Amino acid sequence: MVEDRRYLHQHPELSFEEKETAAFIANRYDKLGIPYRKNVGGYGIIGTIQGGKPGKNIALRADFDALPIQEENDVPYKSKRDGVMHACGHDGHTATLLAVAEAVLPFQDELPGTLTLIHQPAEELEPGGAKPMIEDGALDGVDVIFGTHLWATTPVHAIESSKSVFMAGADRFEITIQGRGGHGAMPHQTKDAIVMAGQAIVELQQIVSRRIDPLKAAVLTLGEVHAGSTFNVIADSARLTGTVRYLDEDVQTQVIEEMHAILKGIALSYGADYELNYVKGYPPVINHVEEANYYIEEGTEIPGVKEAYEIIPVMGGEDFSYFLQERPGAYFFTGAKIEGREAYPHHHPKFDIDERALPIAAKALLHGYRKAQEK
Amino acid sequence: MVEDRRYLHQHPELSFEEKETAAFIANRYDKLGIPYRKNVGGYGIIGTIQGGKPGKNIALRADFDALPIQEENDVPYKSKRDGVMHACGHDGHTATLLAVAEAVLPFQDELPGTLTLIHQPAEELEPGGAKPMIEDGALDGVDVIFGTHLWATTPVHAIESSKSVFMAGADRFEITIQGRGGHGAMPHQTKDAIVMAGQAIVELQQIVSRRIDPLKAAVLTLGEVHAGSTFNVIADSARLTGTVRYLDEDVQTQVIEEMHAILKGIALSYGADYELNYVKGYPPVINHVEEANYYIEEGTEIPGVKEAYEIIPVMGGEDFSYFLQERPGAYFFTGAKIEGREAYPHHHPKFDIDERALPIAAKALLHGYRKAQEK
Amino acid sequence: MVEDRRYLHQHPELSFEEKETAAFIANRYDKLGIPYRKNVGGYGIIGTIQGGKPGKNIALRADFDALPIQEENDVPYKSKRDGVMHACGHDGHTATLLAVAEAVLPFQDELPGTLTLIHQPAEELEPGGAKPMIEDGALDGVDVIFGTHLWATTPVHAIESSKSVFMAGADRFEITIQGRGGHGAMPHQTKDAIVMAGQAIVELQQIVSRRIDPLKAAVLTLGEVHAGSTFNVIADSARLTGTVRYLDEDVQTQVIEEMHAILKGIALSYGADYELNYVKGYPPVINHVEEANYYIEEGTEIPGVKEAYEIIPVMGGEDFSYFLQERPGAYFFTGAKIEGREAYPHHHPKFDIDERALPIAAKALLHGYRKAQEK
Amino acid sequence: MVEDRRYLHQHPELSFEEKETAAFIANRYDKLGIPYRKNVGGYGIIGTIQGGKPGKNIALRADFDALPIQEENDVPYKSKRDGVMHACGHDGHTATLLAVAEAVLPFQDELPGTLTLIHQPAEELEPGGAKPMIEDGALDGVDVIFGTHLWATTPVHAIESSKSVFMAGADRFEITIQGRGGHGAMPHQTKDAIVMAGQAIVELQQIVSRRIDPLKAAVLTLGEVHAGSTFNVIADSARLTGTVRYLDEDVQTQVIEEMHAILKGIALSYGADYELNYVKGYPPVINHVEEANYYIEEGTEIPGVKEAYEIIPVMGGEDFSYFLQERPGAYFFTGAKIEGREAYPHHHPKFDIDERALPIAAKALLHGYRKAQEK
Repeated sequence: MVEDRRYLHQHPELSFEEKETAAFIANRYDKLGIPYRKNVGGYGIIGTIQGGKPGKNIALRADFDALPIQEENDVPYKSKRDGVMHACGHDGHTATLLAVAEAVLPFQDELPGTLTLIHQPAEELEPGGAKPMIEDGALDGVDVIFGTHLWATTPVHAIESSKSVFMAGADRFEITIQGRGGHGAMPHQTKDAIVMAGQAIVELQQIVSRRIDPLKAAVLTLGEVHAGSTFNVIADSARLTGTVRYLDEDVQTQVIEEMHAILKGIALSYGADYELNYVKGYPPVINHVEEANYYIEEGTEIPGVKEAYEIIPVMGGEDFSYFLQERPGAYFFTGAKIEGREAYPHHHPKFDIDERALPIAAKALLHGYRKAQEK
Repeated sequence: MVEDRRYLHQHPELSFEEKETAAFIANRYDKLGIPYRKNVGGYGIIGTIQGGKPGKNIALRADFDALPIQEENDVPYKSKRDGVMHACGHDGHTATLLAVAEAVLPFQDELPGTLTLIHQPAEELEPGGAKPMIEDGALDGVDVIFGTHLWATTPVHAIESSKSVFMAGADRFEITIQGRGGHGAMPHQTKDAIVMAGQAIVELQQIVSRRIDPLKAAVLTLGEVHAGSTFNVIADSARLTGTVRYLDEDVQTQVIEEMHAILKGIALSYGADYELNYVKGYPPVINHVEEANYYIEEGTEIPGVKEAYEIIPVMGGEDFSYFLQERPGAYFFTGAKIEGREAYPHHHPKFDIDERALPIAAKALLHGYRKAQEK
Repeated sequence: MVEDRRYLHQHPELSFEEKETAAFIANRYDKLGIPYRKNVGGYGIIGTIQGGKPGKNIALRADFDALPIQEENDVPYKSKRDGVMHACGHDGHTATLLAVAEAVLPFQDELPGTLTLIHQPAEELEPGGAKPMIEDGALDGVDVIFGTHLWATTPVHAIESSKSVFMAGADRFEITIQGRGGHGAMPHQTKDAIVMAGQAIVELQQIVSRRIDPLKAAVLTLGEVHAGSTFNVIADSARLTGTVRYLDEDVQTQVIEEMHAILKGIALSYGADYELNYVKGYPPVINHVEEANYYIEEGTEIPGVKEAYEIIPVMGGEDFSYFLQERPGAYFFTGAKIEGREAYPHHHPKFDIDERALPIAAKALLHGYRKAQEK
Repeated sequence: MVEDRRYLHQHPELSFEEKETAAFIANRYDKLGIPYRKNVGGYGIIGTIQGGKPGKNIALRADFDALPIQEENDVPYKSKRDGVMHACGHDGHTATLLAVAEAVLPFQDELPGTLTLIHQPAEELEPGGAKPMIEDGALDGVDVIFGTHLWATTPVHAIESSKSVFMAGADRFEITIQGRGGHGAMPHQTKDAIVMAGQAIVELQQIVSRRIDPLKAAVLTLGEVHAGSTFNVIADSARLTGTVRYLDEDVQTQVIEEMHAILKGIALSYGADYELNYVKGYPPVINHVEEANYYIEEGTEIPGVKEAYEIIPVMGGEDFSYFLQERPGAYFFTGAKIEGREAYPHHHPKFDIDERALPIAAKALLHGYRKAQEK
């Protein structure tokens, strides 16, 4: 499992470009003799282990794309691709699900129902891989679904989940500010797009601090700002991208309105133009109470798990939400914090996980399978 | 002359990379049989026309590099290189100086003294091409030097210059703000480099408006800001570049101090770090009174010139300053504004010149040659 | 009741200056023959109605101070004091509690236990009137306590409360930015306190939007900014006051740290000084489950109440928290929204209430009295 | 002279309120037996000393109002009025002109022409005292006028002036930002006028740094910002006042336009309103060459003056400009810097002058009188 994870970590692929990763998974199922369907809604792969006994069809899902981040860890299994990194643990998710398949296989005859192994591409980039996989039949015949995320700031041996809203809705936007460029020494003949961008960055912070009900959670992050191509030419335009997270649809609506108001005001102040391309993304991940309780009330039954508890919603988006809109199920975190080292957050160039979490994650997924069969 | 200018316009090359432009010039001198020295301090070329009569050695200088700008003009001679453009008229300068050489050649025997034709690369990018050319002997034997800039906002038939400070000092800087990146939904675990960059962009504006003596000219322009590589990851660091223009050395000193104070304050506010790499660039272009007067008091003697006058200093930097630190001479503008069209400023993607200015520029350069011989 | 409320509305007094309001209450108790103690921890008044039957001592509390706001309502009972206004409904609270006293009096012999009527001054201004009243014995002998707030954005006939955190913690702060003043035309010789204040106002917004966990509620409001005494003199210093609201003590701690970081950074940027005087104020109002349920689960038993439900915590602070730290009890809102008119928020110059809420509030307080006796 | 200056320093009066100062001056003229006219265009006083010989009528002008500043000097002659201070040296101007009158009186018979002594109120506050005095006949019969300002940053024994633009134009403005107030804990229900004011303060800085030709001088200072009346109520509106200085009328026009653009943009961003009341004030002080040369070329003829030279324009406005629009004349600075002490700028709470400058200023004014007679 560790070997798989490290191989994948060294060979990360960006969302919607995971050709080799998909081939790696398919190759493994070929070797194990597990039937699978490939190119499901993109590079998606669905393996099926048909148990020898009657029972439900339970799906377990793992995502396998990486991020456009330059790894800064100094480890033997460091990414071999410049500017691409498994900085969110999807390498571990994939290794875990492959290990589940391999572990279960010898006991196939004893297995109740069906184990559906969903390997999903493109979780990190909207519109995501979950939706096209579902449209391509990924949930056909499936009764219940479970998924986990290795979590770098939660201690190994702990499981976290929620009985309701577990993860926030996540949108994406792109702002273009169109000024008028010119010679760097003659600002008065231009409409400086960088000064407007600076103004926008600062002023957009006021949406969350002043315009949203303080009791409602919201995040507006600008992830990129790019303007200008040389130091002594005033930039014609600036491009900013970002993400909005929310738990409540009203907040989503209001953030969009306020972004327009602020950008319109800045454009007016400078006699410039703006464009806001706001793409509504993954809805909130909302767990189903019964399945969530396998991990909250009954989570410590999982071998290796010492603590299992409910947490408040997490602001990060996840397209596992689409699976939970279609089927009962639950999403949960498996603690993977490296002790004795600063816990770098997900998406950080120094993100890493404690690999002892992998077998626990595998057992936790199978725990859901078993509990759902028993029900 | 127009043909040359248009050919060069279609084949622009960035500063320090003007290999083909230099070859184009050398090739012309080969064809004309004018002796020249190439690779002078880089891609510099110096042609020499030795007159048949005694006299002084007068140098005329034209620069030939282009800018990293995507041309937005819809003209037949539009740049053929994506993202590179002669947006400052150096194509015209070169065509003009080649035309001077060709025009003078038939009369070589009658010519007093020596005509030195300095083709300089890399005016747009510090440390510039003038300094290494001088170090490589470009001014050896030269008595006086003249240069002109085609000026897109001055009407054709007008000449502008100054008897003292004509163009501002021009510096370049690069700021790196080092925060701590992370997941776009968890700003509280990060130190957001984009928010800090926005803060810096806004706050740096206060140097000119509040901290510099209002009677002293200063410009601080941020030409580039680049941070982040995807919309949902909080950026670790931001990189900003820019330029400072000044007429007075005290202002230069103070701007540097204030930049450090502001950036230090922002870094402290966020527990982050910054780096300011400030590169002092071209000093102010300071004309010599006598030579400047050829273009101010006596400028209308030039055929085609109807107006000649002194103007207040221009904020743009020029490495012609180095030539004027070594030898007497003058720098002047030759009006090149296209009538009936909005005059886009230098370095704008829609910058263009009225080609009727080229023969006037050629005659104006020769005017300096003649005046200096007569003296 | 309406008459009392309107009289009080016309004669508002600022916190800690409610001499006449206290006299008005005392005078009423004199007239009714209800024994009372005055000057309890300031202008506090405690009336006591000793029931004829055995039972508990239940306290009901109403606050009676007003705000430094200029009323903008055009009503016959408009405030007669310039710049002072009952813009938070305390006039109604007092009228309600007096009405309770008057209503109960005829049935004194049938009354179980003791009814303690706590009239509290200075709720709007820290350190508040509750604490000194408690220190002066206001809760001596009291078993349970209830209080209500007329709520201008909740419909009449509705009761709102919470079984746990009901109202946020509320702190107060004062910032002084010390620059160096001077002539308005010579900014470079000064350290402009107003520019620094503007910077601080904008940058402090980033605490809530970027530095606090988005799932934790926080408000940082600047209520006042005052700097400069004439238009053409650069201000030496600026004074800003404001309030911080939180539900969670960690947030309080972090806000204070971040305020210092931001102000320190600004001071460093300008070579100026700052002072932050942060006064921790009322802790969160935390209801007791059993008593809260009288208003949530059993709230519709109150005559005139059609809806009773739990709400998420309210960001406004209340020093009723101190009473609930000492005794079991509950705080609740009595809907007082005026239909067919825009609902101006509390502390707004056009704030007003529907007076039909007053008898409901009175019955709701007595409901708590009865329920607590029955228990 | 020192005694007068100190008396006036201890008894400062605000612009347009200088009743006692005017009485003090009138009283002196009564005592000296110098005929004068009082209440000229307000509290203005004009004394006249008719010489015994023929000649021109030369006016000398001194202003006598003070500023709303709290003095912070610890001197025996400290201002006795709280919040009012002679922080611009007008106490010294008045003492000087009275000393001139007293010194000349014994030689009245020998005096050529007429000496007109103009004591002007309200220089510090637009529309100023000069204009109404002129309208009330202050310049009737006057041929030439001179005035001086004691200058706290120029060494004693130096005289400074200019042959053309000597002091900038000075305008005044008042901005009201109208938001919607409310409870300090519920920002989302309000339009926070203080946040808008902060935004405006920061963004208005970009006019000078980005929108005005860097070669043209301009100052935009905000002198006051006042918003909110208590810490926990979000302010409904904010009021800001300030001043604009310029040397060139185009700059004035552009600043007004840009202020509107910026404020309009901010109002749009917040759905709020703004009002900008911009009052054009004193035009630039433009000296007349011949009279200016008495102080530049011939300034060292004045006893006690060691240096006399031309300086670049000063950004501070002066309504002496109105006198120079009507009559030839000159305005100049008399150095008054206190050695061995930090030179606090004009309008600073610690502003002070070296009193040894007073006799020099008196002699310099008489020097103008003599020179103009000789011409």
